Amino acid sequence: MSKYVFGIDVGGTSVKLGLLSTEGELLEKWEIPTRTEDKGKNILPDIAESVLEKVKERSIAASEVVGAGIGLPGPVDEAGVIYKAVNLGWDREFNVAEELSELLSGMKVKAGNDANVAALGEYWQGAGKGKKELVMVTLGTGVGGGVIHDGKIVTGANGAGGEIGHICINPEETIACNCGNKGCFEQYGSATGMVRLAKEELEASDEDSILRGRRVSAKAIWDAVKEGDPLAIRVAERIGACLGLGLSVIAGVLNPEAFVLGGGVSMAGDILISYVRKNFEKHAFHACRNAEIILATLGNNAGLTGAAKLVID
Amino acid sequence: MSKYVFGIDVGGTSVKLGLLSTEGELLEKWEIPTRTEDKGKNILPDIAESVLEKVKERSIAASEVVGAGIGLPGPVDEAGVIYKAVNLGWDREFNVAEELSELLSGMKVKAGNDANVAALGEYWQGAGKGKKELVMVTLGTGVGGGVIHDGKIVTGANGAGGEIGHICINPEETIACNCGNKGCFEQYGSATGMVRLAKEELEASDEDSILRGRRVSAKAIWDAVKEGDPLAIRVAERIGACLGLGLSVIAGVLNPEAFVLGGGVSMAGDILISYVRKNFEKHAFHACRNAEIILATLGNNAGLTGAAKLVID
Repeated sequence: MSKYVFGIDVGGTSVKLGLLSTEGELLEKWEIPTRTEDKGKNILPDIAESVLEKVKERSIAASEVVGAGIGLPGPVDEAGVIYKAVNLGWDREFNVAEELSELLSGMKVKAGNDANVAALGEYWQGAGKGKKELVMVTLGTGVGGGVIHDGKIVTGANGAGGEIGHICINPEETIACNCGNKGCFEQYGSATGMVRLAKEELEASDEDSILRGRRVSAKAIWDAVKEGDPLAIRVAERIGACLGLGLSVIAGVLNPEAFVLGGGVSMAGDILISYVRKNFEKHAFHACRNAEIILATLGNNAGLTGAAKLVID
Repeated sequence: MSKYVFGIDVGGTSVKLGLLSTEGELLEKWEIPTRTEDKGKNILPDIAESVLEKVKERSIAASEVVGAGIGLPGPVDEAGVIYKAVNLGWDREFNVAEELSELLSGMKVKAGNDANVAALGEYWQGAGKGKKELVMVTLGTGVGGGVIHDGKIVTGANGAGGEIGHICINPEETIACNCGNKGCFEQYGSATGMVRLAKEELEASDEDSILRGRRVSAKAIWDAVKEGDPLAIRVAERIGACLGLGLSVIAGVLNPEAFVLGGGVSMAGDILISYVRKNFEKHAFHACRNAEIILATLGNNAGLTGAAKLVID
């Protein structure tokens, strides 16, 4: 009987691998480097080698493995085709699930977008456990997202379902986002965006602030808010306004039970939630207003956990 | 073998009923008045009576009927519970599907929100045929919406999935929407909103325009645009900017294959699409930008067609 499943989370610098039970227990976790040189041609062979080594090391029989799920930094469609993944050096469109399966002697493989599988992970084993209508928002260097409907990922027509970092929340913005558009959610809700807003406030006056004269980071901003720094609080109000507006828009489309906030910025904790909540309630349609806004609990394991779930489903 | 299905679309003044084949052919269509007096207590009994009369008139056996689907103007959850329907006089929360089923001697009944079932209708038999990732936007007195994922309605946690008329696209708006919030999509994309924008333009100058000195309606605005009226064209640009932005935001969340535009305003036709398309492409994330924007084809039959599909699924 199948009792094991592999979860793989591919990032630009390292690949996180996990061996899980089919019940979702993380039995072992390890990492290998992501070799992006030569157009990333070694990435999948390296992963396959590492998985097969683990199978051998633990004397696992093929019949005991459900399969391997893999999360990737790019749009992946239902069939497992990735369109582009610049961070991995991949410049061609190909079926990742099929190629990895071949390298694993026919093991069942499912592939998904990294933010989407992280959402599935939080739904399966994390903060969103049992909440079948769920949106995860990952606040990191950028803003990623994943939509869970009826307990499954909403992949979208081109694998770009849940690409909420690039919904426009400010059509008046004059500065361009990395994607080329202007006014993207990511320009305000990411760590990078938060630092930009703080620098704007610092430059606008000579007002005293804990943030002045030191390297400003998202962590520094939220720490200063916790200490009651008036300038940092103004920045937090602006961040909260943008995040609350963004979530309210998503709520109007999907009416989820909950939003799970993850990524490095979410480490700010309850104080972040309170600023987001207040602004969310201001803009959300009344029938969607009771959505919970909660912190992710799986941290860096969300991706590999969700990837494992992908292949179980 | 079951070969018939009833589709029912309940509006504030009349109830549209249809007898369809299970393949989706509309065999017969009729209407009865919606009696909203006495807290709308007669509405479901009137519908049941009308359905049973049709069964008798056509000598249909119970075994030949799959069931009856009903679309309602209010949020309806997966189980068929409606939370409120002010237009019908209903002020209590109750299970419409169960009550109607009892009145129909146990016939299978499914209930859904009217905009959601209209979307399902367009997916099943209309402009969105075969497009399993679809969003319908109904541009009428208000703006309604329905989200189809994998060929099924996304109902949401409280039956408010697809309530896109109330996503905030302009947080700077000072005028309140009917829902109490400010800057809702509906305030710009509905017929009412379009007339408001036109009046603003007319009041802002003495510029000559076909629209001046007559009753301004959404139809009059789009007719004037077709005739090349410069003021009307400016209004169309503003409408297009709002509709394009709203659709781009939805695209970022769901990455649908297509948007179907329905409702009275959509009668403006291709010229409306062209203004929306241009602005949609400006704001949409590149991976979501190829979504089609097309006109609904079922007109007033979308609701009862989708309601019928609801009970077949």
